[in-house]
Amino acid sequence: MTESFDALWSAIVEVGRSGTTGGYHRYALTEEDHLLREWFAGEAGARGLTLTEDRMGNQWTWWGDPDERPGVVTGSHLDSVPDGGAFDGPLGVISAFAAIDRLREQGFRPDRPIGVVHFGDEEGARFGVACAGSRVITGALPAERALGLVDCDGVTVAEALRGAGRSPDMVGPDAETVRRVGSFVELHVEQGRGLVHLGQPVGIGTHIWPHGRWRLDFPGEANHAGTTAMADRRDAMIPLAEAVLTARQAGLAEGCVATVGRIDVRPGGVNAVPGATTAWLDARGAHEEALRRTVAAVIAVADTAEGSVREESWTPVTRFDATLIKRLQNVLPDAPQLGTGAGHDAGILANAEIPAAMIFVRNPTGISHSPAEFAERDDCTAGVEALAEVLRALTGDAG
Amino acid sequence: MTESFDALWSAIVEVGRSGTTGGYHRYALTEEDHLLREWFAGEAGARGLTLTEDRMGNQWTWWGDPDERPGVVTGSHLDSVPDGGAFDGPLGVISAFAAIDRLREQGFRPDRPIGVVHFGDEEGARFGVACAGSRVITGALPAERALGLVDCDGVTVAEALRGAGRSPDMVGPDAETVRRVGSFVELHVEQGRGLVHLGQPVGIGTHIWPHGRWRLDFPGEANHAGTTAMADRRDAMIPLAEAVLTARQAGLAEGCVATVGRIDVRPGGVNAVPGATTAWLDARGAHEEALRRTVAAVIAVADTAEGSVREESWTPVTRFDATLIKRLQNVLPDAPQLGTGAGHDAGILANAEIPAAMIFVRNPTGISHSPAEFAERDDCTAGVEALAEVLRALTGDAG
Repeated sequence: MTESFDALWSAIVEVGRSGTTGGYHRYALTEEDHLLREWFAGEAGARGLTLTEDRMGNQWTWWGDPDERPGVVTGSHLDSVPDGGAFDGPLGVISAFAAIDRLREQGFRPDRPIGVVHFGDEEGARFGVACAGSRVITGALPAERALGLVDCDGVTVAEALRGAGRSPDMVGPDAETVRRVGSFVELHVEQGRGLVHLGQPVGIGTHIWPHGRWRLDFPGEANHAGTTAMADRRDAMIPLAEAVLTARQAGLAEGCVATVGRIDVRPGGVNAVPGATTAWLDARGAHEEALRRTVAAVIAVADTAEGSVREESWTPVTRFDATLIKRLQNVLPDAPQLGTGAGHDAGILANAEIPAAMIFVRNPTGISHSPAEFAERDDCTAGVEALAEVLRALTGDAG
Repeated sequence: MTESFDALWSAIVEVGRSGTTGGYHRYALTEEDHLLREWFAGEAGARGLTLTEDRMGNQWTWWGDPDERPGVVTGSHLDSVPDGGAFDGPLGVISAFAAIDRLREQGFRPDRPIGVVHFGDEEGARFGVACAGSRVITGALPAERALGLVDCDGVTVAEALRGAGRSPDMVGPDAETVRRVGSFVELHVEQGRGLVHLGQPVGIGTHIWPHGRWRLDFPGEANHAGTTAMADRRDAMIPLAEAVLTARQAGLAEGCVATVGRIDVRPGGVNAVPGATTAWLDARGAHEEALRRTVAAVIAVADTAEGSVREESWTPVTRFDATLIKRLQNVLPDAPQLGTGAGHDAGILANAEIPAAMIFVRNPTGISHSPAEFAERDDCTAGVEALAEVLRALTGDAG
């Protein structure tokens, strides 16, 4: 198993990796994405698994025939945030193949099909909507809206698909694919320090906090930085700065997390008073009411500045399947149960009524979305073993 | 004269103009820059003027021989800030040619040479250092430093020069060119509302406020926006926001102008806690001590955040030549005298001991560095007439 994991890891470790920071730049419908898709197809082929692609281009590979009987699916995504870490996403896909290798080494033959999925564009780094791959096929994101999403160069998803030699006509809900998924277990590196505090290498994900994204546009008047008196200015940077500080204060006060991680300033010249700025607010919390109060505080800053606010996404609390969690707990009696503030494809599937749950692997620093993201090798091994046992229990030995 | 001005204006009005905002994007060593250089050469040729280029690629054209006797030079720059206005720079070059046309229509023949200059890269929008063209030839900016400046794509000035088919070897101080400039009068659109308040179409520029640029780098730790507790974060956006607000408060308190118009956020993902941010502070003021206090307040924010600060430029007050100002005032008895918070090539030349002064043309809104930048047509005409009279008085009729 260890050799299989190492080989899988090494094969993609350099794809999209920055030579200066060591961080990853793997965005939807780019050359890196293409290389990762080829790798996935190759690993499936090497294992004699059948490969299919759904109506958003997500890749599925099967051990057994899911059209005879819906299967147990595992897997994750391979894309990254800008300068992201090596584990967020890829650990789940690599562990999926490694778990299959482990089961086969043990002579296991599943009574139900086992699937491995590679969801596209989970981070939404290029087109701004997270989990676009799973959202489209489950109907949570309408095809027209998905195709019209625009990257920072003004390229739409439809254009990017064409550029990748794919047809935008294929995009849409995919009932045939969804029907094949009897249940979904996503293995993922933990993105906080919950398992560190609990002293366990592996945990069971039980729910995803409510979370959302808001786009705030602040107006102003572009002008010369050297000749426009402070009193005469309408500097669009000022309300943006106030929104950043308000998000932090409100998040602290309400026990939520609120982040302004991306901003845009126009015209953006060193000697020009900003005439327009945009900030994206990402906010999440265990309690929906506290979260709503946090967001309202930031929106109030935009309102005072006569700015505009658009809710780009909102996801209520997502509870994973209670029966599935119970079965995982039976297989992994030592694994603690954890909620998470991160969105995942498992949450999108859960919202589409597919029984879903997650397995988290310990992250010693809790750092994620950064080149410093990490998991100890032994904990990765524990994750593969846990996943293999879960797949064994959920599919039953036909041997 | 009016026809000449209109033809000059129309010939370049579309170069680098945005179809959406109407603003200009004219940056050093780009295609737009090249088109503007060709236009300048063409206008010089059409008037039978000789054209030369100095050791930073600034273009000079002469009516008369400045190697016999130093001449009176006018002109300005043609580049813009991002999404800048049509007047800042081009008005001075166009008015220079139009003033020569007017003098010739009147049968004037100068006793001393008249020169028109097109300074490159005045705004510093691409490579970050303002007045790079005049700084290099006067020795204020060492060639090695100029050649090593980098644009936001990592391209150096040296590389951009080579890309434009020019040799970096030529770059350096140019005593031969500087020696030809007996005096310099730059016509420029006003970038505040001084002339509006004074009810005059044209004013005389007497001095440039002390001003500078500082780069502030704030450290942090990139992390997942959904899973990192607020208390555990080192979010590099927070001290940046504090610096923005401090710059405004200190500027207001000290009677200076302080602007953060350009920032950079890394990694820049919607769902990533910023791990590093950069802000550029532009600060100027009539009084150096108040200006230093303003900057110190912002630097204190960076110090508290364990950030780093680099003074990218500092220019003490620049007083234009008293004798030259007196001669302009004699020719333009109604023109009020004004200081300015904007840097200009005229200031660089003044600091190189070349007698220099400026003529400002009224700007009804005071807006500059924006597509809304404007000057009334009648005021532009008054500017050309004033410049022609100044050139006539300074060069003397040889007819």
